[in-house]
Amino acid sequence: MNAAMKIDRARLEQSITDLGRIGATPRGGLTRVALTDEDKRGRDWLVARMKDAGLRVTVDQMGNIFGERAGTEPLPPVMMGSHADSVPTGGKYDGQLGVLCGLEVIRALNDAKARTRHPVTLIVFTNEEGARFQPAMIASGVLAGKIPLEDAYNARDKDGIRLVDALERIGYLGPEPCVPRAFRAYLELHIEQGPFLEEEHLSIGVVEGIVAIAWSRLTITGVQDHAGPTPMRIRHDALVAAADVIGRVRGIARELGGELVTTVGHVVVHPNIVNAIPGTVQLSIDMRDPHDATLDRARGLLDAAVREACEQEGVRYELEHYWRVPRTPFAPDVVAAIERAAKTTGAGYRRILSGAGHDAQYMGAIGPAGMIFVPSHGGRSHCEEEFTPMDDIEHGANTLLGAAAELAGATPA
Amino acid sequence: MNAAMKIDRARLEQSITDLGRIGATPRGGLTRVALTDEDKRGRDWLVARMKDAGLRVTVDQMGNIFGERAGTEPLPPVMMGSHADSVPTGGKYDGQLGVLCGLEVIRALNDAKARTRHPVTLIVFTNEEGARFQPAMIASGVLAGKIPLEDAYNARDKDGIRLVDALERIGYLGPEPCVPRAFRAYLELHIEQGPFLEEEHLSIGVVEGIVAIAWSRLTITGVQDHAGPTPMRIRHDALVAAADVIGRVRGIARELGGELVTTVGHVVVHPNIVNAIPGTVQLSIDMRDPHDATLDRARGLLDAAVREACEQEGVRYELEHYWRVPRTPFAPDVVAAIERAAKTTGAGYRRILSGAGHDAQYMGAIGPAGMIFVPSHGGRSHCEEEFTPMDDIEHGANTLLGAAAELAGATPA
Repeated sequence: MNAAMKIDRARLEQSITDLGRIGATPRGGLTRVALTDEDKRGRDWLVARMKDAGLRVTVDQMGNIFGERAGTEPLPPVMMGSHADSVPTGGKYDGQLGVLCGLEVIRALNDAKARTRHPVTLIVFTNEEGARFQPAMIASGVLAGKIPLEDAYNARDKDGIRLVDALERIGYLGPEPCVPRAFRAYLELHIEQGPFLEEEHLSIGVVEGIVAIAWSRLTITGVQDHAGPTPMRIRHDALVAAADVIGRVRGIARELGGELVTTVGHVVVHPNIVNAIPGTVQLSIDMRDPHDATLDRARGLLDAAVREACEQEGVRYELEHYWRVPRTPFAPDVVAAIERAAKTTGAGYRRILSGAGHDAQYMGAIGPAGMIFVPSHGGRSHCEEEFTPMDDIEHGANTLLGAAAELAGATPA
Repeated sequence: MNAAMKIDRARLEQSITDLGRIGATPRGGLTRVALTDEDKRGRDWLVARMKDAGLRVTVDQMGNIFGERAGTEPLPPVMMGSHADSVPTGGKYDGQLGVLCGLEVIRALNDAKARTRHPVTLIVFTNEEGARFQPAMIASGVLAGKIPLEDAYNARDKDGIRLVDALERIGYLGPEPCVPRAFRAYLELHIEQGPFLEEEHLSIGVVEGIVAIAWSRLTITGVQDHAGPTPMRIRHDALVAAADVIGRVRGIARELGGELVTTVGHVVVHPNIVNAIPGTVQLSIDMRDPHDATLDRARGLLDAAVREACEQEGVRYELEHYWRVPRTPFAPDVVAAIERAAKTTGAGYRRILSGAGHDAQYMGAIGPAGMIFVPSHGGRSHCEEEFTPMDDIEHGANTLLGAAAELAGATPA
């Protein structure tokens, strides 16, 4: 490896600006929801830049985009990537940054005329956020063999549109099989989305693994009625029960403490008008903890909380625990390579655990994976205020370059 | 007045069935939201039936439909009516029944070849429910001079469509001025929407007035963030604060007791996805009580409840008290005429107060108004299960006929 090899900060900053324009919101954020027209324009821009960089571009059955830089030996590639979709009114760093730093690493390898024993492949994953099609990380889930392709294809958005039809509409229903493939390492740079790196004035998080995550869906059925002439004594208000559940979900995190986080993010009320007592409410519960056992305890408390809240209001309910991923440790040799590369940059770094799910989680299930975090200002993400200073991004991208070069067996030209 | 004059039960039942087909839901309810295609079809059907009955049909600037049966003297009319719009997945009695019983009264007068000194006019009011355009009862509000026509025209639905454009689209933007007009009496038959008449085995409620109603709108602004890596200690979750408010709104009714009812019916969460901490939540608060002073106290408690809930979560808020109508007593002579007519039917009846707002409320502000209630099964309305037995409907329609005939000065042919 060429110790002098560095990314081009100005070029990287320019590409962040350029891609950030596609789906930009007036307040500096990003709305580029999976498989929309904006997503297509973002993908088209990325494919053009990949081709500019000399990569061989392919698209698989889930719309995942691969750009391969050839290696000198017939070995599995070192993969780098992330996703290019955003949540609605999200930020322009989440996902995008990992893809663009990967692209910058490729460009830096090209600039240095570096040769690598392993190919180096840039990946752009489809629908990581789960904002439009659930579950989140659906495309890396299929790639890892954890989600059947047919199930993913039949996932529907809130308007009833199937994922496969949305893929086809934007021209990214590719021919490559979306199946597990061999790789030397999968490397994903991502914003931390939490406050720790910034609080500790560090530029880089060497991610050891991802916390355990559980998603549940609650449907409460009360008695829809007129808000005026219906006396309080005969009411069975689905929203009053839902509100009680929301308070109790917050209480579970307070009760168990530690690093457990619990969130109700999605609520649908019916008929949702001022003068009707809500008849049904659907809501989501997202719970995460570094320890699987704590998440098990939280789930038990959730079951009890929902039962009590609904009994108190005299409403029926259905509670589905529909998605669960255990704590995922990353590959020790990949984590070590990232740590060495981070050290070389001279920037402050520490080992850290990810509180968010990432495509690296599924990739880690079929091969050696690791992640690099850069700080999130105020710990904020999934919002327009999402921000990471360019100094940190530069250190992060150089860490990605160093780790990729080492793992791919780079030699200078 | 001809003491033998009666409505035709079979014909009335048939018209309830016929109009109920337009916008019918699979589970026996009705979705005929104001100024939609279904509403247009319902209006067209009603206009055709009015013309069949020999009425002179006119439409005013708010789309209110008038069908006049001439009187023998140049006197102000006795008006009867209600609305033909419904809430989404509402029932087929709310509003519709008052219009159809009014139509049946006209038909019965025709059958009896009765002549009346005053004209008898059937009215169909636009957008009573407020499910699409707010506030509710917007068209009778304009007619009564309480809401400026321009404000009503600029009311927008959730898709940003203006009321005036929706009126024009369905062809019901009429030429008649929508201004206060003289009338001998306004009579509205309506379902009770509460449990009292059924519980007491009575067929008819002689409505003395309408409770005071207050609508408020709360917007909570927290900090939108990722549900995973954001530790609980730095969260400012707009939905957690909203849930606390919903619980406290219920608590206000419990604390003040009596006949006070409090409801949160409408909630909008942003960005409303599983893995984002909600950044903003909007919700409605509907409070009603027979006594204006109690409603004043409830509003003071609401102000405090919102302040406490939002302070506790560290979120900002804006609370708007945007609509308030005081308790409305109906005209004593009209109430007395209705009571005499109810007595004549031989059915059980009692005086009652309405917990719901009705177009009669605004009509009562510019002339003598009164209402007739028929029972709601289980007290339920604004839902598909809304139901009133045909026996009670027959008694109610005969009460409407008797009161209209007396007030209009009917003489048999």
